[in-house]
Amino acid sequence: MSLPSNAIFLAHARIKTHIHHTPLLSSTTLNAALGHDIVFKAEGFQKIGAFKARGAMNTLLKLKEEGRLPQRVCAFSSGNHAQAVAWAAQILGIKAHIFIPKTASQTKIQATRSYGAKVTLSENRKSAEFDANALVSESVYIIPPYDHDDVIAGQGTACFEALQDGVNPDAVFAPCGGGGLLSGTLMAVKEFGSQAQVFGAEPLKANDAAMSLRAGKIIGFDTAPDTIADGARTLAISARTFAYLQQLSGFFEVTENDIMYWTQWLTHLLKVSVEPTSAVAMAGAVHYLKTQTTRKRVLIILSGGNIGPDTQRQVWAQDYLTKGLVFGRQGGEA
Amino acid sequence: MSLPSNAIFLAHARIKTHIHHTPLLSSTTLNAALGHDIVFKAEGFQKIGAFKARGAMNTLLKLKEEGRLPQRVCAFSSGNHAQAVAWAAQILGIKAHIFIPKTASQTKIQATRSYGAKVTLSENRKSAEFDANALVSESVYIIPPYDHDDVIAGQGTACFEALQDGVNPDAVFAPCGGGGLLSGTLMAVKEFGSQAQVFGAEPLKANDAAMSLRAGKIIGFDTAPDTIADGARTLAISARTFAYLQQLSGFFEVTENDIMYWTQWLTHLLKVSVEPTSAVAMAGAVHYLKTQTTRKRVLIILSGGNIGPDTQRQVWAQDYLTKGLVFGRQGGEA
Repeated sequence: MSLPSNAIFLAHARIKTHIHHTPLLSSTTLNAALGHDIVFKAEGFQKIGAFKARGAMNTLLKLKEEGRLPQRVCAFSSGNHAQAVAWAAQILGIKAHIFIPKTASQTKIQATRSYGAKVTLSENRKSAEFDANALVSESVYIIPPYDHDDVIAGQGTACFEALQDGVNPDAVFAPCGGGGLLSGTLMAVKEFGSQAQVFGAEPLKANDAAMSLRAGKIIGFDTAPDTIADGARTLAISARTFAYLQQLSGFFEVTENDIMYWTQWLTHLLKVSVEPTSAVAMAGAVHYLKTQTTRKRVLIILSGGNIGPDTQRQVWAQDYLTKGLVFGRQGGEA
Repeated sequence: MSLPSNAIFLAHARIKTHIHHTPLLSSTTLNAALGHDIVFKAEGFQKIGAFKARGAMNTLLKLKEEGRLPQRVCAFSSGNHAQAVAWAAQILGIKAHIFIPKTASQTKIQATRSYGAKVTLSENRKSAEFDANALVSESVYIIPPYDHDDVIAGQGTACFEALQDGVNPDAVFAPCGGGGLLSGTLMAVKEFGSQAQVFGAEPLKANDAAMSLRAGKIIGFDTAPDTIADGARTLAISARTFAYLQQLSGFFEVTENDIMYWTQWLTHLLKVSVEPTSAVAMAGAVHYLKTQTTRKRVLIILSGGNIGPDTQRQVWAQDYLTKGLVFGRQGGEA
């Protein structure tokens, strides 16, 4: 399957009555400190608290359009994708069966169940994927977290909305897990006719995409990398998302310190819940902005706002606020 | 000075081009769990991150209207009022001198300085108030944190906006520090012609207002009470706010556990920064709702979203999310 040249427009038209048109946020304090202008697309206010609602809903609605809506969907995920598929299935009145690694947070498991999904706890990430795939049949459709054209097109609607709302960025940043959000963002920028450069960012501790881009081939992890940015703990990107990521204007690897620094500062400045995964994109943007000699307009996709209590405890263990907002000296060296 | 019967309307007309018309938030998950409907007025998105911007701006703009804008303002505060006065003074192009107890958080001291104010660190709350009062002269005007008609009228515009936006509540809840927000809220409800009951809530550990209401006279603390809700650490209400508080339909005292439970849950459900002081109002509302036999509509004024890193660490030290959202069994007994 290949996507039409107006795939993001179509995806947005398809899902827009079901999703939130999320707000754009900015901070004058931040922009003054940086000497640049950043606009944040706040997907924490999206249904289920993250952009993942877009891709899951687009996939199911497209199947419905084509007269192929299955009786049941399944998915594997330790996080927001699980909730997104459960939510979308509930709205379309079909059953969802979600496989979640047993190490996932109770909060996310409960949230997935609250949308009426059947949840099975698998041994780990790989077995969750295996278990979900084993269920696929004529009547059971699997919605993968990123390796799917309609999932990617759905995720791209976040950036598309921001561009439609009049943001005219020089650069767009999104975090990289499996690469679905970044792939969709690249498509959205191209489809909209924007001249913006698109950049990705990833935790240094979970840098499979960065390694893959350097090697020119996909390199993955055997076990989930230990970063606080739980949305970036994917084992590997896919051939489909790799092809998109190779079109990026640049890619940044950021330290755990960087991530916690910006999780604290964005929470403090914007007054919204910011997942560490979202702070990854901000940390990357800061690395980019340090190299810019003219004032730049940057759009950052804040991927979501779902933060479990354990992660909150980790985020706030150290104090990054009292030392002040110092552009060029945050966190540590990448 | 007595206030006209349209004081809140006039205050709102006066300040509205300078402040944010903050959004109303709700959570279907929460409403389903409670069996009631709660609308939150999100003053965390207000200028300086709290409702205090309203009262400070109203006071200065009214002085200006009357041709009495001073050359300099001063204030004493350990928190949001300090930032509010600094911000309002900066906008009106006059100097601000703020006295802050030296125990206040660095984050709040920095934020106050960032609005161009001169900050003097005083030994404690009482000496901060003494130092500020000592500065008052022909050219220096003091804006007290709550004991002032125009401050109170300004704070009332938060509730007024919500009522204008179409919220039609059976009950309105606000947290009680010095009583300024509650006094203004009472005025707003009355002025709007709403039949809503107005309730206050206070930390049990800082229950000077509750004790005062029971005793029929003002009872205060000598030193700041040790509650996580830093907006409620005031030493005593004033005669002016006491007269308003006596008109409340009820007043609730809530435990520190209650406060942390609802700080976590509101952050989780609404995806915004919720000060523990704001969670005080929610905890109070839950006590009220437990006694209600018919479905109620409640408006809660979320006072602000400024949370220092120490407070965040305290809030997230225990996990109140994993045990689930259990109406009727949160936190502990008050």
